[in-house]
Amino acid sequence: MITIEIKPPYLIFVADEKEPTYAKTASGIADWRRDLCAGQYSFIDDGLDLGLPNMTIDEAAAAGVKSFVIGTASVGGGIPEEWLDTLEEALEAGLDVVGGVHKKLNDIPRLVAVAERTGSRLVDVRTPPADLPVGTGRKRSGKRILMMGTDCAVGKKYTALAMERDMKKRGMNADFRASGQTGIMIAGRGIPMDAVVSDFLSGAAELLSPENEPDHWDVIEGQGSIFHPGYSSVTLGLLIGSQPDAFVVCHEAGRKVIEEWDNFPLPTIEQVIERTVDLGNQVNPNIRCVGVAVNTSALAAEDREDYLEILSKRMGLPCVDPLIDGTDAIIDNLS
Amino acid sequence: MITIEIKPPYLIFVADEKEPTYAKTASGIADWRRDLCAGQYSFIDDGLDLGLPNMTIDEAAAAGVKSFVIGTASVGGGIPEEWLDTLEEALEAGLDVVGGVHKKLNDIPRLVAVAERTGSRLVDVRTPPADLPVGTGRKRSGKRILMMGTDCAVGKKYTALAMERDMKKRGMNADFRASGQTGIMIAGRGIPMDAVVSDFLSGAAELLSPENEPDHWDVIEGQGSIFHPGYSSVTLGLLIGSQPDAFVVCHEAGRKVIEEWDNFPLPTIEQVIERTVDLGNQVNPNIRCVGVAVNTSALAAEDREDYLEILSKRMGLPCVDPLIDGTDAIIDNLS
Repeated sequence: MITIEIKPPYLIFVADEKEPTYAKTASGIADWRRDLCAGQYSFIDDGLDLGLPNMTIDEAAAAGVKSFVIGTASVGGGIPEEWLDTLEEALEAGLDVVGGVHKKLNDIPRLVAVAERTGSRLVDVRTPPADLPVGTGRKRSGKRILMMGTDCAVGKKYTALAMERDMKKRGMNADFRASGQTGIMIAGRGIPMDAVVSDFLSGAAELLSPENEPDHWDVIEGQGSIFHPGYSSVTLGLLIGSQPDAFVVCHEAGRKVIEEWDNFPLPTIEQVIERTVDLGNQVNPNIRCVGVAVNTSALAAEDREDYLEILSKRMGLPCVDPLIDGTDAIIDNLS
Repeated sequence: MITIEIKPPYLIFVADEKEPTYAKTASGIADWRRDLCAGQYSFIDDGLDLGLPNMTIDEAAAAGVKSFVIGTASVGGGIPEEWLDTLEEALEAGLDVVGGVHKKLNDIPRLVAVAERTGSRLVDVRTPPADLPVGTGRKRSGKRILMMGTDCAVGKKYTALAMERDMKKRGMNADFRASGQTGIMIAGRGIPMDAVVSDFLSGAAELLSPENEPDHWDVIEGQGSIFHPGYSSVTLGLLIGSQPDAFVVCHEAGRKVIEEWDNFPLPTIEQVIERTVDLGNQVNPNIRCVGVAVNTSALAAEDREDYLEILSKRMGLPCVDPLIDGTDAIIDNLS
């Protein structure tokens, strides 16, 4: 195992959550990887409904479920005391327990003891794999497209997931590659780049999109922004290790400053393109921007199309809201 | 304690080493921080002589020594079994034991037990401080100069140490800031940037050169190279967090490719300057290159001066070999 791997099928745990807003991981998995989901497990009768069969842990084990996936976050990112009996029950039934919240499952002695006895795994998706290598910069076969953001939280993960979906619909050979904890929970595998020790960042990125068939596309979730005062080194490590042939700039319409770093103006899309090409061409001289993905949710419905049309003219590139328009226009520009 | 801190004065441990080449840490401390060294401790009569008094551990404890510093590396970076009695004796005598080799002192149960019982510390300088923050990008008072390399191992650490020495000689208010394990062993404090989890890289760099008096210079040891396929993200995090006013490009005369990454040509000094200014001006719009420090040891003695003169004309900057010429020409260019 080189990247983190979550064994399917899953029983998705939503605790006592009722609103999808507070169970983004559960909703994300059910939206993007329904084929990996066998059922849902709620503490309450009117809990969040992901549209999956309700299952007890025993039923899930009998149905061949392999992982009990924590799909909700408690306030503060902990593992509440009242979850522990259930998590233990899942381990006892032979299921791995998988968590992406801040508190690590492997730091809870009670769970560690049960896992050791039963052989079930506690999978913390925020813990990078051990023994990551230093990046080599050696060219790998296969093709890669990376999401680059003007900021954090602008839709890089969902753009990549939408591209993978749309590429597969066309019969293209493509895989989403998750580089952050929510993406890993959704995809069932990946490496949490922001938790990697910095010496091994580009090496971890190399593992994330390994050598592949010549026509295969890795669609790589981006991290941070190359202009981010806190996180740009994560972005650079991912860029250098991914050696992308193509990239998409992801942006949120209306955002003016770097979120929570208000004294830093948001870079322009042009600046992100220029810097990405400048830095990325060391590992791939053919690197180019193939489109812009915009989260337009802050715009009035009647302004949306105008905004994208004007942006597209300015950039000379396909510009779409991937969750409304899909990503076909960008994929057309790949060939 | 925000950065790692080694308590002076030191007893320097050289085990059974005879050659300074294999005890670079010991020699580095004795060369650059003799005032912090009380004595040396060798297993053998004809061991490496740092020019310090030979001391037993009891003598050192009686003389007020606070740290027993491992100044040599065993083959493979381990802690040999035959060192353990001595390390225990130091802990028992109330000295901290300090190591910078790959194997962590805190992973050796026998030493951990003694440290817990005696209250002496096991200081692993490759282990970053806990609870590092995310970088804020906020401007700090005081001035900063950062070493940038065309590659790893081109003299960034020794250039910074020479600059600190030469600045202090002029009565300037300056401190060397160590960003790697050998530098930390020499300076007695610092943060090993390459071991920091990547989300906290620029935050760690901000801690390394904290707010200071307006005329104070932090002379910051650089890491890697902004063009390095394995380590450029470490370099970027250090650059962004340091928000330097000035930088020096460090280079080794004659090097043509990135060492151990032979398919990557070495960047030119001009490329390093251009990229450093491009990336660094986000956190300091006044950033500028003030000189070039060249390790000329690969050149014939009669070629050295010509080389530096030609380079200086080409760059329009002072170019020196810091270990031969000192760094006054670069310091002159700071004001």
